[in-house]
Amino acid sequence: MSANVPTDIRFSFAALAKRGGETGPHADGWGITFYEGRGCRAFHDPEPSARSELAKLLRRYPIKSRIVVAHVRKANRGRVSLENTHPFSRELWGRRWTFAHNGQLKGVKRLTLGGFEPIGTTDSEHAFCWMLSQLQARFPKPPRPARLEAVIAELAREMSGLGVFNMLLTDSRTLYAHCGKRLCYLTRRAPFGTATLIDEDWRVDFAQETTQTDIVTVIATRALTRDETWTELSRGDTLVLTDGDVRVIGH
Amino acid sequence: MSANVPTDIRFSFAALAKRGGETGPHADGWGITFYEGRGCRAFHDPEPSARSELAKLLRRYPIKSRIVVAHVRKANRGRVSLENTHPFSRELWGRRWTFAHNGQLKGVKRLTLGGFEPIGTTDSEHAFCWMLSQLQARFPKPPRPARLEAVIAELAREMSGLGVFNMLLTDSRTLYAHCGKRLCYLTRRAPFGTATLIDEDWRVDFAQETTQTDIVTVIATRALTRDETWTELSRGDTLVLTDGDVRVIGH
Repeated sequence: MSANVPTDIRFSFAALAKRGGETGPHADGWGITFYEGRGCRAFHDPEPSARSELAKLLRRYPIKSRIVVAHVRKANRGRVSLENTHPFSRELWGRRWTFAHNGQLKGVKRLTLGGFEPIGTTDSEHAFCWMLSQLQARFPKPPRPARLEAVIAELAREMSGLGVFNMLLTDSRTLYAHCGKRLCYLTRRAPFGTATLIDEDWRVDFAQETTQTDIVTVIATRALTRDETWTELSRGDTLVLTDGDVRVIGH
Repeated sequence: MSANVPTDIRFSFAALAKRGGETGPHADGWGITFYEGRGCRAFHDPEPSARSELAKLLRRYPIKSRIVVAHVRKANRGRVSLENTHPFSRELWGRRWTFAHNGQLKGVKRLTLGGFEPIGTTDSEHAFCWMLSQLQARFPKPPRPARLEAVIAELAREMSGLGVFNMLLTDSRTLYAHCGKRLCYLTRRAPFGTATLIDEDWRVDFAQETTQTDIVTVIATRALTRDETWTELSRGDTLVLTDGDVRVIGH
């Protein structure tokens, strides 16, 4: 999620959490990171989100955030453990970066890393460390935003050459998404309507929850609601989200 | 805390949490990090721990861990915000490092950093980034444990030259503590007895909660229990804790 005001994510998180072992097969752990300014709160659990005590608790806990990254895992490389649970996090240029990924990347572990090394054993964390190592090597200081997004899109395309690279990445300011296989998004803004989750019987009237100037974009592998129009991305597209606004960088 | 078996910290956390705004003045946020193998769970809140919803929740949530770092903050440098809330965390050598500090360090921000930069504005996070930058510059790969602890003790002594440097540091394997002003510790092992918190009416019979081989060491600025014998450290001492075992490196 990317938004121009601190926004409660519990409606979307409820649907995602169900997919972690109940309405979907991603039962090998889950995590969620909420940004508040430059800092963030992250929650990880190797338990299936559909049955996790921590997930139940977060469904009752109204953290408001402008950038949220959440992930449910289906393990292929790397055992089920806390250190292999997405999203992963590192600091570069005094910014807290967060990364989540779906897919497999053949041979990614042969790529040389710089100042960032994996703590766990997933392909995904290696890819994240490689991307940050590349950014650090090219830019000792943060480049201007247009240059940064172009390089991130280029690095994401390079990763896509190794397999499926469906990913979310943020530096606490901008949220980047890359469609390696399947990704869709939805922007909610005035006039707000109602929405009903696909995975659970929960309906929200956003007109009651928002103000006229709110802009909130949600990205997901598959649509989370049944009565809104989600936009499917094409393979190879990189999405750049700032304050809920979306730009697509084609491939 | 350092222990040789995954141990429930809720008894000690209850006392610390009270000191964050109720029985103590450290009301400017709190945080706690639980290690599980190479990974960890971290919880941060800029609210006073004595009144924090998240802290209430953690008092009910039996996370078992062999290394725990917890902190309640009294802000002096850096506003009250999530990114200024201890413990701080970074990755070096594929290990997740965690750091918490009490005290003020005059001129620490003039020290040059390497591959680690602060996200927030505290003296403490700058000191942490400096220590990791020094370790990274001296050791491209992790040195053997005896060398690592000697260098950490040396860096801690250097920080103590700038002011009060009461700190906890861990790389997920070993817990280091430096006494810059006041620090005490207690090791619980068989035969286990009972203990009563100072800050709250809570008594535990550890014989009921442990096995004969458990070793659990708790470090705190001030003793947490009234009926156990805590050992006071001397200024300048560095403590090295592995699986609950304690060694003191004198200064």
